[in-house]
Amino acid sequence: MKMLEALNSAVADDSSLRCILLRAEGNVFSAGHNLKEIHSGNIESHRAVFESCNRLMLRLRSLPVPVIAQVDGIAAAAGCQLVAACDIVVASDTSSFSTPGGSVGIFCSTPGVPLVRNVPRKLSSYMLLTGSPISAQTAFTAGLVSLVVPKDKLEEETQCVVESIVSKSRAVLALGKRFMYQQAELTEENAYKAGADVMVNNINMADGQEGICSFVEKRKPHWTHED
Amino acid sequence: MKMLEALNSAVADDSSLRCILLRAEGNVFSAGHNLKEIHSGNIESHRAVFESCNRLMLRLRSLPVPVIAQVDGIAAAAGCQLVAACDIVVASDTSSFSTPGGSVGIFCSTPGVPLVRNVPRKLSSYMLLTGSPISAQTAFTAGLVSLVVPKDKLEEETQCVVESIVSKSRAVLALGKRFMYQQAELTEENAYKAGADVMVNNINMADGQEGICSFVEKRKPHWTHED
Amino acid sequence: MKMLEALNSAVADDSSLRCILLRAEGNVFSAGHNLKEIHSGNIESHRAVFESCNRLMLRLRSLPVPVIAQVDGIAAAAGCQLVAACDIVVASDTSSFSTPGGSVGIFCSTPGVPLVRNVPRKLSSYMLLTGSPISAQTAFTAGLVSLVVPKDKLEEETQCVVESIVSKSRAVLALGKRFMYQQAELTEENAYKAGADVMVNNINMADGQEGICSFVEKRKPHWTHED
Repeated sequence: MKMLEALNSAVADDSSLRCILLRAEGNVFSAGHNLKEIHSGNIESHRAVFESCNRLMLRLRSLPVPVIAQVDGIAAAAGCQLVAACDIVVASDTSSFSTPGGSVGIFCSTPGVPLVRNVPRKLSSYMLLTGSPISAQTAFTAGLVSLVVPKDKLEEETQCVVESIVSKSRAVLALGKRFMYQQAELTEENAYKAGADVMVNNINMADGQEGICSFVEKRKPHWTHED
Repeated sequence: MKMLEALNSAVADDSSLRCILLRAEGNVFSAGHNLKEIHSGNIESHRAVFESCNRLMLRLRSLPVPVIAQVDGIAAAAGCQLVAACDIVVASDTSSFSTPGGSVGIFCSTPGVPLVRNVPRKLSSYMLLTGSPISAQTAFTAGLVSLVVPKDKLEEETQCVVESIVSKSRAVLALGKRFMYQQAELTEENAYKAGADVMVNNINMADGQEGICSFVEKRKPHWTHED
Repeated sequence: MKMLEALNSAVADDSSLRCILLRAEGNVFSAGHNLKEIHSGNIESHRAVFESCNRLMLRLRSLPVPVIAQVDGIAAAAGCQLVAACDIVVASDTSSFSTPGGSVGIFCSTPGVPLVRNVPRKLSSYMLLTGSPISAQTAFTAGLVSLVVPKDKLEEETQCVVESIVSKSRAVLALGKRFMYQQAELTEENAYKAGADVMVNNINMADGQEGICSFVEKRKPHWTHED
């Protein structure tokens, strides 16, 4: 609960923020909820834990900046959920992912929420119903991670992703991330309709104009990062 | 029609049931509907066949226990649909999957229902529009199968999946499977909200309490398997 | 804008049309919108470009014949969108796919519409937020292309797909393609219900009857291609 509250406070927005990178010390990215804490709690404290967890997951999506998970090791249960809830995931090839709650009588129902939206059904069902882990390579094939890299290249490859993000306009990425999640829940026809408006607005933003001018003039863009 | 009726009767629930395993004799898992039967039938008999088939597919999802397809060979048309409609699929590496109905003038429209929900669009469109088969390895990459294993390991690997399921609480897996399909059709925000309630209820079930206690006490859990 | 209008006119239906194949000359399939044209335009012209583009994408889906993209080289921004909007994609192994608009201040919001419906979220977010390209092999693994083939086999493999399509009944593929997209936006239960009607109608079409008879009589079918 302390970790959830710390994360909920830490991922607040700020106009100078450009990107969030979540990583862990040691060889466990996150093993999820603390079963001892749940054991000693009551219904009210259980509800508070899961509501705090939901708040964190939805906040990662609604933040205007990209959220990257750098995974090196085990991501299990709500730890696997946290991975699946980030925008981009860079994992070392020795990492593994699992939703083993069923083995201790607590089915990974909330980890399943982002899991079934990221991993094909036959594999997400297998993970949820058996609790068996999948390797980083299988997680990449399945779509749960964006990039799988050798363990000794993890920092370097993550840094490339971060640099690619901070070289762009904060305002343009904010508009893009917001629409990306929004349109995914519309019918395809309505998504296209809404998309045309977003494109026209984007072109007429200060950083949209600057981007096109810099391209035509073959020079580097100077972003205002403002809406 | 006889096979559909036999399957519809066979997959009935029973409180001692823990898992269903569907497999075939020989090197065809299922080639789908019997075209000769359709040829000699009339509109009423055609409708009865597809309604019985729909009933079977939806029943597999609504059963409280996991349903595993063990595939060793050809799964074509409604046979491929049956595979896609199970919770978990273990396939030998010599298996193949196809929806070739268009070649005989009967587009695989109903097999397409679970196919497009399991396999990315460009591959499911290709399978449906050309009728070409895909290999077990491609089916795994695409998400249609959970595990692809060497033919001589098929029994052993399937048995591991079964053992993993029967080692868990029937009641916990039932709750988990039901919510997994239910939340997948909600918006992500509503899925999280509903998920928090499911987690709190799960923790306070007899087998939820037993699971957490056994974890804290470092012993094996003894499940009641009851809701 | 000229190219969009030319494509919009070219992809009109005609009862003798059986399949559409989109390909490019040279080593760029399409680099998307012309930024110089956008630079010199005004809000009205910007809106006209994106509405024409939306019209093309939705028309590809609503056409009664399969649309194949043959990709050999770069498919970027709206070029990647065009790929994702076709029914079937055959790509050479040296092709690449990207949505790099953010780098020039114009987030690939409309390319994202078919992208997030074809490519798992963690990879589509990565492509949209960083602009980094993915290889043909990764695009196949992710589900953005149907087949990836060696560059020197591209014509031959595309021709196999075309032949497979033209060997079938135009009317049956039209019914199948229409239902495939329609059912994908229903709940699974409603999709099955609607599917039973489609199957019964298909069996009782002239080409449905001819297909089943030819199968039972072990001869080649002779299609009318008529509804």
